[in-house]
Parts: sequence; C-alpha cells; structure tokens
Amino acid sequence: MDLPHGTSALIVTNDTVGPLYGAAVAEALGKRYPVVHTVTLPDGEEFKGWETLQRIFDALLAHGCDRKAVLFALGGGVIGDMTGFAAATYMRGVPFVQIPTTLLAQVDSSVGGKTAINHPLGKNMVGAFYQPRLVVCDLATLDTLSAREMSAGLAEVIKYGPIADMEFMDWLDASMDALRARDRAALAHAVRRSCEIKAWVVGQDEREGGLRAILNFGHTFGHAIEAGMGYGVWLHGEGVGAGMVMAAELSRRLGLVDDAFVQRLVALIERAGLPTKGPVIDASDNAGRYLELMRIDKKSEAGEIRFVLIDGPGKAVVRAAPDALVREVIDACCA
Amino acid sequence: MDLPHGTSALIVTNDTVGPLYGAAVAEALGKRYPVVHTVTLPDGEEFKGWETLQRIFDALLAHGCDRKAVLFALGGGVIGDMTGFAAATYMRGVPFVQIPTTLLAQVDSSVGGKTAINHPLGKNMVGAFYQPRLVVCDLATLDTLSAREMSAGLAEVIKYGPIADMEFMDWLDASMDALRARDRAALAHAVRRSCEIKAWVVGQDEREGGLRAILNFGHTFGHAIEAGMGYGVWLHGEGVGAGMVMAAELSRRLGLVDDAFVQRLVALIERAGLPTKGPVIDASDNAGRYLELMRIDKKSEAGEIRFVLIDGPGKAVVRAAPDALVREVIDACCA
Repeated sequence: MDLPHGTSALIVTNDTVGPLYGAAVAEALGKRYPVVHTVTLPDGEEFKGWETLQRIFDALLAHGCDRKAVLFALGGGVIGDMTGFAAATYMRGVPFVQIPTTLLAQVDSSVGGKTAINHPLGKNMVGAFYQPRLVVCDLATLDTLSAREMSAGLAEVIKYGPIADMEFMDWLDASMDALRARDRAALAHAVRRSCEIKAWVVGQDEREGGLRAILNFGHTFGHAIEAGMGYGVWLHGEGVGAGMVMAAELSRRLGLVDDAFVQRLVALIERAGLPTKGPVIDASDNAGRYLELMRIDKKSEAGEIRFVLIDGPGKAVVRAAPDALVREVIDACCA
Repeated sequence: MDLPHGTSALIVTNDTVGPLYGAAVAEALGKRYPVVHTVTLPDGEEFKGWETLQRIFDALLAHGCDRKAVLFALGGGVIGDMTGFAAATYMRGVPFVQIPTTLLAQVDSSVGGKTAINHPLGKNMVGAFYQPRLVVCDLATLDTLSAREMSAGLAEVIKYGPIADMEFMDWLDASMDALRARDRAALAHAVRRSCEIKAWVVGQDEREGGLRAILNFGHTFGHAIEAGMGYGVWLHGEGVGAGMVMAAELSRRLGLVDDAFVQRLVALIERAGLPTKGPVIDASDNAGRYLELMRIDKKSEAGEIRFVLIDGPGKAVVRAAPDALVREVIDACCA
C-alpha cells in the first residue's frame, strides 16, 4: 500500500461511518503522518452541496493545512465525490485517497476520478476529473451496511453485465442470493470484476469523450428520479435500478434487444431488492417532468438527451431517442 | 483569432465593465454562436467568493447550457479567475476565453491558467489550474480604467523587472510617465513583454512545482494586506506594490541585494502611483498578524512561509526567512 507523502492528513467522513471506523483509520494514519485531523459531515445525498463542501475547506484552513496535506475520503459515494472535489480544488489541488465503505462506492464511484457536488438544478453539475492516489476497499466495512444500502450498491454491480460482460451477468444470476447474504467470496468477486470493467472503460476514455458514458446506463432516468423526488429520498442506486429498467425498455422499443433480455434484467434488479418501477414525480405531466430533468443531464447536447442503451446483450450504445417513444416508456415504467 | 466551437456562449462580466463593452462583445459573438447569454456580477474583490460563483452556475443551468457551452470572461482579474474556475468545474469542464479589460488582467491574471475564488480565511484558496483557449487583449479598454486601477495594474508589470529582466526595468524607469498617460505604444510594449515573461515561466512550470512561484513576488505580503484589511479595501495591485517593497527590504536584510536596488524599486513603485508602505492591520501586534496571515499562503510548507526574494537584480529565489527578521521588515515598512 503506497500512501502519498504529506505533512498532514485530513479524514473526511460522515456521522454514520465516522463513529464506526474513524478512530481506527486515524490511528493507522497517525503512524504515517505527523498530524491527522478529522472532519465529520452530515450523512446523505441531500448534503452533497456547496455548504457541506465548504466545511472541508474550513477544516483545512482552520488546521493550517497546506499543499502537502493529504485528504482521505472515508465513507460512501457522497463522501468520496465531495472529498475528491475538495482535493481537486483546495489550493488548486492536493492528493487524496479513497477508502470506500459502501458497496456502491467500492464498485463504482471511488474508481475513475469523477468528483462533484450537486446543484439544486442537477446532480453532479459542478466538479472535476481528479484521480485518487489510492483506493482502499475493505470488504469488512460492508458488514455494517443496511440492506437498503446494500441493494443500492448492487445496482451499480448489475449494470456492468448488460453494458459489457454477459458472463458476469450469468454469474450475478447465480450469485445474487450469496451477495445479499454478504458472502465474502461473492463480494470479493463482484468488487474485483466491477473495478476491472470500470478501469478498462475509464482507461480508454477518462474525460468521457465517448465510451465512458456507457457507465451511466440507467443513470439518465435515475438522475431525473433523484432530482424529481428531491435528493436523498431515493438512494442513487435505487434510481439507477428503476432507471436501468426504463433504459432497457427503451432499447427494446427501439428494436435493440428482445423482450426476454428485458425480463431477465428486470428479474435480476428485483432480486437485488431494488425498485423496478420509477416513481411518479409529477402528477399532472409525469413524462414531461422526466424529460425536462433529463435535458439537463451532462450527456445532453443542444437540448437532445443522449441515452445509454443496450445494443444487444453485453454491448452499450449512446444515442438519442424520439420524445414520443421516451414518453411511452416512462408511462409504462412508472407507478 | 480562433474561437472554440460551441453551441452557446455565456459572457460573464460585472456591473462596471458590462455596460461599457457587453453589448459589443455579445454582438460579435452572436455571429459565431447560435445563442449568447450574459450574466452580470457585482464588481469587486469582495465578491470573489462562492455566492457569486454560484450565479454563473445558476445562469448556465437556467439557460440549459451543456458541455458545448463556451464561457467568456469580460472584465478584470476577479471576473477572469471566477469565470475560469466556473469553466473548470461546470459539468467537470467547458472551454473558456479571457477578454481582460484591466491592465492587471492583461499583463498577469488572464495568462497562465490559474483560476480561483477566495475563502474568508485566505485568498484564492479554492481553485484549479485550467487554461483559457484564447486570451484577447484590447488596449482600447484601458482608456476607461480609473487612475487607481491603472496603478494597480502597473504593480504586476513592474514585478517582471526585478524577478526576470533588468532591461525591462530600465525601460519601465524611462516609460512610467507614458504608461500612466496611457500612451498606446508604451502600453503595447508593457503588455507584450509582461505576457512573454509570464508565458516563459509558466511554460516551464504550469503547476507551480518550483519556478512559477517567482511570479508571486510581493504577493505573500500583499495577500496578507488584502486579507487583513478585508478584501476590496486595498486593490490587489496596491497590496502587491507595498508587498514588493517589503519583499525587497527582506531581500536586502538577508544580504541578497543592496540598498540602491531597493531604493530604485521603491521609487518606481511610487512613480506608478502605488503605496510603498503597508497598512497597519492590527494595532496591538501588527507584525504578528501579518505572519499569521502569511502562514496560510499557498506557498507555505508545514507552517514555514516561503518568500519570493530578489537574489541579485533580475533574479528571484523562493526561500524561508527568520520570523524575527520578517518582523523587523514589517515594522520598518508599515505606516
């Protein structure tokens, strides 16, 4: 394990994870850094905004941390994204390390260097591409996850099957019960294979000029769900679960996959404990509201929504779709 | 002139510059971009914080701007730094163009890719290295600058002499009156030579691993003045003016330059219409307060302040100095 050199360390965590692992991490880092500080943020997607980010900067400056400080993100995806963005921008850049403690963060958000905060009008709208020096995944931390958080993480595991690896999807079909029971060997394989696929994709397209966008399968609809319901009401992975169903159904209606594929994916998402229907976010014009929110997705171009679709099992494509068809999918997939 | 491709343009300006040049720039850009929007921010260093930055993001999202948007910074250093940081982080990065309308921005801040906002505890503490695609300097815009802003810009012109080019310092001695009278030929030479020297330095060290720090001659003391007085009370260039005197005096007391050099620099700063004495920022322990503020300078390492000093005329060095000696300099140079 190769920790970055530094004259001080700042652990950024939240009030759920901090009490569980904060002291152990601080003790371990104390052997390596002259000074170790901790800042504890409130837990939840609804706090992934500027006000909370500012508390990281306040802590860094209050402790006199300079450019030789190293930040450690101890928590899930929200902590990782915010800590990474703080590291990218504090004094124009200091090193940071990811210590993801949720399945979602271990298989997705801690790898690849996307950092961001939310804006009231859109998720992850302000951020930077900034790579962590190291990602440390301890599977033991998954033992303390709630069942709901576990399911949310499985959404990001499942996505790697349809977009890139149908063998992995076969394995997931066979291993879903073991994963939900937190079988250590099954989790180890799921985390390893997910990170391998993600690293392969990001290695070819760090800045999302093209290929990387396929990792957002289910996310265009999912982000609309999160923003439409208010951040934190649905977990990110829950939005992605229902979002994958919608994206698969849109793929089917465009003739890219057959009904059997969609049914298989829906069944797997359901077995993961995830919603397979999207919520109604606007009683008067639900599809219209989804479309409105999706148009400010970062993949959109000149108001045209770019969907990640399944172009035959194991292969993804990014393309537009007619509004009328998208409306049909939303009407069929929300309840 | 090679403008970046884009589907929309957002002009970011302030309520001083916007009324003067906003319409002309919007008209010119309208020939190149399908849609041109403008956001007008309040003018002044005291607004270089998150709240004002947020207004740029609000405008981008309200207008449905996507990753194909291009930002244009129309104004001085504050507008350039904030617009650059917004461009660096909006959707994790969109292109931007600098159109600096102050001397300070034309000779310094628009070139080199440093972007940032202030934190209440320190100047430019949150930012990114992010290069503009293009810098457009129109000397005619300097005609509308106040005499005070003009002098503040001259501080950043003067600094290039002692740190890198004594021939340029000779030329400044001969041309100061012409510059203050806004002689177009003199301004053209000052802007061109300043940008040449800055580009040469930044080309060797974009991320300020070493050499680039010499561009901060006068800035360590200057930033303490700005923060100590409250942002916007002294102009940045005024702080740099008095700061260069202090840094030169510290260089002299360390035996790096002689008294004649310091006197010559002080005279040039005075002829530029700049303060040559620092303000008293704390009546009970002025030097202590300067030291405290300088310790959170970005060049500091483990609480040790790194000063940019003149190591013989035309050559700069970055090094520490004993606190006692720094206190003597502050006591001698503040009034």
